[in-house]
Amino acid sequence: MSLARFSLNQATIKLASLETAVRLAVEAGIPAIGLWREPVQQYGVARSVTLVRDAGLRVSSLCRGGFFTMTEGADRRSALDDNRRALDEAADLGAPALVLVVGGLPAGSRDLAGARARVADALAELVPHARAAGVVLAIEPLHPMYVSDRAVVSTLEQALDLAAPFPATEVGVVVDTFHLWWDPTLPAQLARAGREGRIASYQVCDWVTPIAADPLLSRGIPGDGDIDFAAFTSLVSATGYAGDIECEVFRQEIWDADPAEIVKRAAAAFDRLVSPHL
Amino acid sequence: MSLARFSLNQATIKLASLETAVRLAVEAGIPAIGLWREPVQQYGVARSVTLVRDAGLRVSSLCRGGFFTMTEGADRRSALDDNRRALDEAADLGAPALVLVVGGLPAGSRDLAGARARVADALAELVPHARAAGVVLAIEPLHPMYVSDRAVVSTLEQALDLAAPFPATEVGVVVDTFHLWWDPTLPAQLARAGREGRIASYQVCDWVTPIAADPLLSRGIPGDGDIDFAAFTSLVSATGYAGDIECEVFRQEIWDADPAEIVKRAAAAFDRLVSPHL
Repeated sequence: MSLARFSLNQATIKLASLETAVRLAVEAGIPAIGLWREPVQQYGVARSVTLVRDAGLRVSSLCRGGFFTMTEGADRRSALDDNRRALDEAADLGAPALVLVVGGLPAGSRDLAGARARVADALAELVPHARAAGVVLAIEPLHPMYVSDRAVVSTLEQALDLAAPFPATEVGVVVDTFHLWWDPTLPAQLARAGREGRIASYQVCDWVTPIAADPLLSRGIPGDGDIDFAAFTSLVSATGYAGDIECEVFRQEIWDADPAEIVKRAAAAFDRLVSPHL
Repeated sequence: MSLARFSLNQATIKLASLETAVRLAVEAGIPAIGLWREPVQQYGVARSVTLVRDAGLRVSSLCRGGFFTMTEGADRRSALDDNRRALDEAADLGAPALVLVVGGLPAGSRDLAGARARVADALAELVPHARAAGVVLAIEPLHPMYVSDRAVVSTLEQALDLAAPFPATEVGVVVDTFHLWWDPTLPAQLARAGREGRIASYQVCDWVTPIAADPLLSRGIPGDGDIDFAAFTSLVSATGYAGDIECEVFRQEIWDADPAEIVKRAAAAFDRLVSPHL
């Protein structure tokens, strides 16, 4: 199996402990892991640093910062401070990127343009801290079905436009197949992302219909759904992206299954559907 | 109440008969109705023509044609023939436009680009019939969450690109708030649609979260969700669009309610949130 660039995002086996996730990755011959803040904080940041280092794993990204679309006030200040802490944690873990889920419309608001402008403002505020930490703020465009409650950044073009004022070493984008595969402008925008050096993370998971009753949990392991991973991955490869590729699946049946089996399935899917196109 | 350009799409009161829908529209002072093929066929096309004419209603659109993304073969020929019949029905009813929901990926296929190319081919085949019938083929971009199972046309830009080879009197687009409100390129693409004279229908309904367990039924009456109808409608008005504006809501609670009440609620919402921006 060719897993040289494969990274297990720990959300794929969400119910497993961090220790278990690290052990399963090592046992499966996976060289990298994508971490989430909550389990890392629960285990302790310093202990987590030691755990992944002793296991010989790279940390491909830390998930997640963002949620800073609210109007000015104490909540916004608190969110920005929390993003600064997240950048520090990412630096401690050796993660090159902090994944940003930017947030939806504030409660009761219909001002999408305003929320989007506040994303730009938040990036400008956070960039000095990102630079100091040596961690890229990686804007993740989320599928448009999450626009109002989770992320007002919906397309790769929009994420690249938001990143444009800043150096690529400080602000980049996350390319996630589930969120972006439908976009007719994807080939052009991926080529642009490559030219601009903006791809901070490539994440693979599949689009499975019918959409789950909780639409957040509609993802599948590559091969279980409608996405052409050969075509998508070839476009990403053509950009020159040379980093780790995370498999990040949110799905109840996956979480309910034996995590060791899921890790094997994800690795096999990567080997079969993604790796040949790198 | 200012309902001069309001049209009741009959799907909003889906469980009511065509006769009831027509009567409720007239009683509410609504001058137009958007029809669906199934109830029209059930009532009889000729009888439906008489019914709406005697009621003094305009027919703003007929829903729907499309579903022609399959590869060549008997099914595709049958789908195209059915679209020709739909164009004839629209002409009989005096509907200026046939709404096209183009279809998703064929079963087992992951070839999104191929399905999209077949939409372009289908339009080219149908245009002579549309011209003869005097009915616009109105491409409806559907929200990207329906890309694999319902419509591989997901953005206004994409719909306009598909329409571009044909005269605007033969191929246009449907602008539906629910499907398009999230799109950061909406202002630019609406302006383009105006310049190119492509808007064949403007439909209003709201985006309500959480997304319904059946995502097709996630729509709400304007005001019940997250969409800024003032901003959206102002952009449409600026294009010069002067046609009817349909309220088309799919939602179980709405269908289960008293249709007379729903018609009143939809008309009041139009009067309050849409009409002032025309």
